[in-house]
Amino acid sequence: MRNFKTIGIIAKQGDVRIEETLRVLTEYLRNKGLRTLLDASADGLAADAVIFPREELVQRCDLAIVVGGDGTLLNAARSLACHGVPLIGINLGRLGFLADISPEEITQRLDEILAGDYIEEPRALLEADILRNGQVIQRHDALNDVVLHISNDVRMIEFDIRIDGRFVSSQRADGLVICTPTGSTAYALSGGGPILSPSLPAIGLVPVCPHTLTSRPLVVNASACIEISLSAQNSAPAQAAFDGQSCTSVSAEDVIRIRQKDAPLRLLHPSTYDHFHILRAKLHWGEQP
Amino acid sequence: MRNFKTIGIIAKQGDVRIEETLRVLTEYLRNKGLRTLLDASADGLAADAVIFPREELVQRCDLAIVVGGDGTLLNAARSLACHGVPLIGINLGRLGFLADISPEEITQRLDEILAGDYIEEPRALLEADILRNGQVIQRHDALNDVVLHISNDVRMIEFDIRIDGRFVSSQRADGLVICTPTGSTAYALSGGGPILSPSLPAIGLVPVCPHTLTSRPLVVNASACIEISLSAQNSAPAQAAFDGQSCTSVSAEDVIRIRQKDAPLRLLHPSTYDHFHILRAKLHWGEQP
Amino acid sequence: MRNFKTIGIIAKQGDVRIEETLRVLTEYLRNKGLRTLLDASADGLAADAVIFPREELVQRCDLAIVVGGDGTLLNAARSLACHGVPLIGINLGRLGFLADISPEEITQRLDEILAGDYIEEPRALLEADILRNGQVIQRHDALNDVVLHISNDVRMIEFDIRIDGRFVSSQRADGLVICTPTGSTAYALSGGGPILSPSLPAIGLVPVCPHTLTSRPLVVNASACIEISLSAQNSAPAQAAFDGQSCTSVSAEDVIRIRQKDAPLRLLHPSTYDHFHILRAKLHWGEQP
Amino acid sequence: MRNFKTIGIIAKQGDVRIEETLRVLTEYLRNKGLRTLLDASADGLAADAVIFPREELVQRCDLAIVVGGDGTLLNAARSLACHGVPLIGINLGRLGFLADISPEEITQRLDEILAGDYIEEPRALLEADILRNGQVIQRHDALNDVVLHISNDVRMIEFDIRIDGRFVSSQRADGLVICTPTGSTAYALSGGGPILSPSLPAIGLVPVCPHTLTSRPLVVNASACIEISLSAQNSAPAQAAFDGQSCTSVSAEDVIRIRQKDAPLRLLHPSTYDHFHILRAKLHWGEQP
Repeated sequence: MRNFKTIGIIAKQGDVRIEETLRVLTEYLRNKGLRTLLDASADGLAADAVIFPREELVQRCDLAIVVGGDGTLLNAARSLACHGVPLIGINLGRLGFLADISPEEITQRLDEILAGDYIEEPRALLEADILRNGQVIQRHDALNDVVLHISNDVRMIEFDIRIDGRFVSSQRADGLVICTPTGSTAYALSGGGPILSPSLPAIGLVPVCPHTLTSRPLVVNASACIEISLSAQNSAPAQAAFDGQSCTSVSAEDVIRIRQKDAPLRLLHPSTYDHFHILRAKLHWGEQP
Repeated sequence: MRNFKTIGIIAKQGDVRIEETLRVLTEYLRNKGLRTLLDASADGLAADAVIFPREELVQRCDLAIVVGGDGTLLNAARSLACHGVPLIGINLGRLGFLADISPEEITQRLDEILAGDYIEEPRALLEADILRNGQVIQRHDALNDVVLHISNDVRMIEFDIRIDGRFVSSQRADGLVICTPTGSTAYALSGGGPILSPSLPAIGLVPVCPHTLTSRPLVVNASACIEISLSAQNSAPAQAAFDGQSCTSVSAEDVIRIRQKDAPLRLLHPSTYDHFHILRAKLHWGEQP
Repeated sequence: MRNFKTIGIIAKQGDVRIEETLRVLTEYLRNKGLRTLLDASADGLAADAVIFPREELVQRCDLAIVVGGDGTLLNAARSLACHGVPLIGINLGRLGFLADISPEEITQRLDEILAGDYIEEPRALLEADILRNGQVIQRHDALNDVVLHISNDVRMIEFDIRIDGRFVSSQRADGLVICTPTGSTAYALSGGGPILSPSLPAIGLVPVCPHTLTSRPLVVNASACIEISLSAQNSAPAQAAFDGQSCTSVSAEDVIRIRQKDAPLRLLHPSTYDHFHILRAKLHWGEQP
Repeated sequence: MRNFKTIGIIAKQGDVRIEETLRVLTEYLRNKGLRTLLDASADGLAADAVIFPREELVQRCDLAIVVGGDGTLLNAARSLACHGVPLIGINLGRLGFLADISPEEITQRLDEILAGDYIEEPRALLEADILRNGQVIQRHDALNDVVLHISNDVRMIEFDIRIDGRFVSSQRADGLVICTPTGSTAYALSGGGPILSPSLPAIGLVPVCPHTLTSRPLVVNASACIEISLSAQNSAPAQAAFDGQSCTSVSAEDVIRIRQKDAPLRLLHPSTYDHFHILRAKLHWGEQP
């Protein structure tokens, strides 16, 4: 059994419900005699905790607890994954795909998890390089998706897709979502993509409003190297977004190269975790019109 | 039989193929003894024609010939419709949904049309008012569609739809396409909308990447008054585009009110016109994977 | 104000909840001094009512009350429409698109309706002729839809669509749904069709699992004459279903000719009726994953 | 390098083009001094070849050549896979997803393949057991898909999906396609499923016309044990089809249990093989409306 001794807490900002949850959480951890580090995001929210900048926190803690929603967890995951720090997610009252512990059950679930009674699930991330004239000019990570999309008032973008060096297709579309299995239930789902099992070694490519009506979502091997080249005709800039949280401009002839990251996120769940239960709850399955 | 005596020509700019087509066309009309007015868009493209600003041209001509593609025709249609000037479209080599006369058949088709042998098809337009604090601040027309859409790096917008004053639904989506039957084969089709017969008295509402997975395209009566209100939570601006050609910012709590325009476009076709033939050609029907 | 004096009751068979509802209903009508006729479908369910065969009931009553679900109402509608008898629908506890009065509110709603306080909504039906060697061999009506579909263990069917005598397309598919606006929220919706406003003068054509990936739902004018011809290569029989309730075999080279019926169903609603409210309730709109 | 010495030929029946192709093929193999066995399906089509029943042929040959289309190859694949016999497919003039050698290039491609210059691609099959009262009553293989579907004139079926013993969802639909990556471009694609890379260790589940509008295609690990139980309410029988070629009735409360087969098909391609090229050709990618 693994011993968690130093616990990092990363919290969503600007939500009134969070202070009470943080109070319960920090008190619980103190009573357990565990060292608690608070991410700078939670500064001012918990009176007597030690605040650390994210970069330092992820190096010092051996378990991270994220309090917020899936958005907060996505942000935390990108900093934690490469340090191998496992993570659990406490939602703020609304079940998340990732943050699956509700505030009422914090102490019970943490008792179990700290006692080693949990499910560890590796979740793959993506790594996206933006190349200009053949040089990598930016690198971004994503737990859900990399989205190439039209930018302000541009009606569509044209791009070529290559996989492992082979030409796949030229597309004219609003955009393209490249997603992990985790991201398959996020934006990719709105674009008509399939739901991928979390552990499937796969990457999804989901076109957004493709002009070619026979364009379809693709699911390729996790080992694939995916290259998206904006065609030279795109005079107007497009944009690339990472988990919908950070965003950068891409220009005509830029290439976005996407691969699965070596290190997955180590996501911990209570031992009662059931992926399909969450799917049913989130997608309202079982309800017929 | 209607006599066409003054012919306005509106042409796409910046396409090399256009000069030859314009030369053939203006010579043809001169030989017929018809008066030819050239839209300012074609200035410099035809040596000896009289140039008029669009506003004047649409008032003086009793037939307009558009040379270009569907994009050029959309632009022309918005200025011509309210003056009741009929319009024919000459494409530049690639069959359009609207510009359906190819350059090679110009003289033959014009012979027929000038002799009264044509099909006149009324095509409805939309009229969109943008309201801020209850005041109309802008008005735009569209032959294809009015598109409310996320703006730069905003992940989704939230809006309410009301039809004839009744609440329909709250949506979170990339956008919403409100289209005429003419526009149903344009952007709305990429968003998963149905194909509406050109003469159907209907307006289509097609959500773009809706987060609510049970959201579906709606087709409502042409008499409907459609109101889209951006919810107050949208701090970032959204954008509204008209035929994908002009674009404006809309703010939280703005309302876009859309109705069918009273005056339809009078679109003329050769008497061989067959809407389904164009559909089959453009959508590659008849081809199975 | 119209006076309803003779009321026909048509009820779903084989549902235990129906007897209590029928008891309340017949007692209510008797107290109002109205003549009540019971359709043979309800024989044995209401002790002291006069039983009539459907054919006679529809000629004698000037208002019909259907107790059951949308299925029972579809069946009743096909017999009532051509006699111009208005109809109201009482559901058995689960809101229907058509049967929109719940058992608890029977007396209140009927008080209002009998006092003339109601909304009358005409709902179009379809009329389908099956032609073999040019001869009409069968005629069927439908309030929701006519569905041409593969029959037992046949993988797909091939057929041509013609509208008003013009060839539209050849398709290979599992089937084709031809629906009224009323039927657009039934099977057609599962096939990816749009939601049509109940009063839209339109007919929908929704392909089911088309092999041609560019095949899309069509919405055509209510005046259209739609002809579906099974191609000669279909050695195995296909089937045609009407409101999913009656079904017939169709053979290679048979033609199904579908038009809107002259007489619509006269559907009555309480004056609180709101089509969009029912849509939201049935489609779970407003709920995001 | 592997030596192919005994070649089995399996041919589509009833196609006039096949005799010439078979003549070229058998003459080519005779000249190479290879032993040629002809499947009983080709009896009478090639004058001087030795005919073997399928069961014997698959045990004696060390390479199989299928002449026909994807349908013929599917049939052959199910008998060959478990014997580990590699297979190449010659189409009859129309490029297949599986049969990718055209008649004109037979001798050139076979020269290369017999010289060891080829790509060997393992393609997974599915194994479906039908259980009644807990007993396996039938077992079927499929290279493309197992399809559970409504049977004659039944409007929909209700079933529960379980994966690895866990409940996924209850569905009401026309059917459910369970497909291999190979089958993802066949019927599953018509149902709205994604395109899976041929080597992806995955199984697709694609609902056909689901009544639950939030139902989506799922892609699960190849190791999954998928169980589909027809609910007790289904009084009418459903049917299960395997590669669309064989079909069996399933009753209420029957369970279909589907797993990936241990032995994949060994599909050989010319070394010029490019999966994406075939996709583009078959799906008409690159063509915009």
